[in-house]
Amino acid sequence: MENIKIIIASDSIGETAELVARACISQFNPKECKHEFLRYPYIETKEDIDEVIQVANDRNAIIVYTLVKPEMKTYMESKIGTNKLRSIDIMGPLMGYLKDAFEENPYNQPGRVHRLDDAYFKKIDAIEFAVKYDDGKDPKGLPKADIVLIGVSRTSKTPLSQYLAHKSYKVMNVPIVPEVTPPDMLFDIDSSKCIALRISEEKLNRIRKQRLKQLGLGDSARYANEIRIKEEIKYFEDIVDRIGCAVIDVSDKAIEETANDVINIIESQSK
Amino acid sequence: MENIKIIIASDSIGETAELVARACISQFNPKECKHEFLRYPYIETKEDIDEVIQVANDRNAIIVYTLVKPEMKTYMESKIGTNKLRSIDIMGPLMGYLKDAFEENPYNQPGRVHRLDDAYFKKIDAIEFAVKYDDGKDPKGLPKADIVLIGVSRTSKTPLSQYLAHKSYKVMNVPIVPEVTPPDMLFDIDSSKCIALRISEEKLNRIRKQRLKQLGLGDSARYANEIRIKEEIKYFEDIVDRIGCAVIDVSDKAIEETANDVINIIESQSK
Repeated sequence: MENIKIIIASDSIGETAELVARACISQFNPKECKHEFLRYPYIETKEDIDEVIQVANDRNAIIVYTLVKPEMKTYMESKIGTNKLRSIDIMGPLMGYLKDAFEENPYNQPGRVHRLDDAYFKKIDAIEFAVKYDDGKDPKGLPKADIVLIGVSRTSKTPLSQYLAHKSYKVMNVPIVPEVTPPDMLFDIDSSKCIALRISEEKLNRIRKQRLKQLGLGDSARYANEIRIKEEIKYFEDIVDRIGCAVIDVSDKAIEETANDVINIIESQSK
Repeated sequence: MENIKIIIASDSIGETAELVARACISQFNPKECKHEFLRYPYIETKEDIDEVIQVANDRNAIIVYTLVKPEMKTYMESKIGTNKLRSIDIMGPLMGYLKDAFEENPYNQPGRVHRLDDAYFKKIDAIEFAVKYDDGKDPKGLPKADIVLIGVSRTSKTPLSQYLAHKSYKVMNVPIVPEVTPPDMLFDIDSSKCIALRISEEKLNRIRKQRLKQLGLGDSARYANEIRIKEEIKYFEDIVDRIGCAVIDVSDKAIEETANDVINIIESQSK
């Protein structure tokens, strides 16, 4: 079957439209349903729109767009109409509702969601914080962190910390390994900001074997050894009991799902 | 004015719907136009939907939703209809188009966009890579990286690396400081994967003064000194000339915009 062509057109970067398109595409079998994204960011002029319309006509593509400047949006709509093209306006319906509800005119400035305001700098600080205090490198991060994640090796602490940092939380993660005594301060911080990542023995075994294969090592290394894994998990559970913190089972969860659980726990405790 | 209530309802996490809502909200003056998000992730049953409908009725909220299970979507639509509620279906229109275009039925499984497939693990690896090789810590990352970012201090190398990592690029960043000779290998790698982040003197001066204020230090420290900044930028330009790599001016750009520029350069060079 022919590839389905999806034009992502935006007067900003187009990441909102692309995320919606990706969420939809992920619902189809990638072997049977091939697709191609054609990206047209920073649409500024009618000529830019004419180019998009031309491509949509030539390549039989659907146009998924986010345009906030009224004159560009109107021009796009009229061109789509006269060319009888398929299109989806991602922001239009909600913008229409908000205009009425707020009884205010919007700024109509593309890319405002990326503007350099306090929220933006808070996010940047959080990302730098998570890099700086990754892997328990410096216990001085513990009192400053909004969230402290603990877990055995290979429980995705680093990417989870980064994911939460992109949501503006300052996150420190501390690996729990029998040979390394965790910093004393871990038992002194507010336990409600500490979250333990639990993983099943089976899952941990599978992930580590995978990891060893990637590193070109055999199965037998201590890292993936079953007795060793039991010992690590026992040690982890002891630490969790001592801290008395919330636990999330990450065995079958994607980072995004675990992050959602973490945020729910943190926000419900801070109320 | 009263807060506008926006319900984000999803049979997965709801991040797609929330991103669309945030993009729209950012177009309104936050002082005049107050809003509140009410999140209902993991909608699984009709009772979950009944709760959302109840809240929408009680609090006069608009429902912005992503539901991929047909029975849940149909139930939501009928309840919205009988209750005469305002709503926006984020994925519905594009899903409808894709079903026809692919001539295939979708999986209808919530959260597939977060599934644990190769693309997912590639992203996780990229995030860990960017943390591991942040700040030029280990030149061994240079040949392995997809993208090498160079720049003086405070050009957002770390958050930019992380942002690109979330798009599955393996990124290493190397700070350029007159006192530290960059690793020899920087001049040996394929210069087409190296990107230099240029910043204006004025902008750098402003950012650093801000930074010193945050750290509780005065303006006069060397870090924000004008002569020092000129010297650093001169040194940076010399390195850029030696490598012969592409340059992006980041002076007035948000990370997301710079990331978009980086990806365009890298993708166009790899063609």
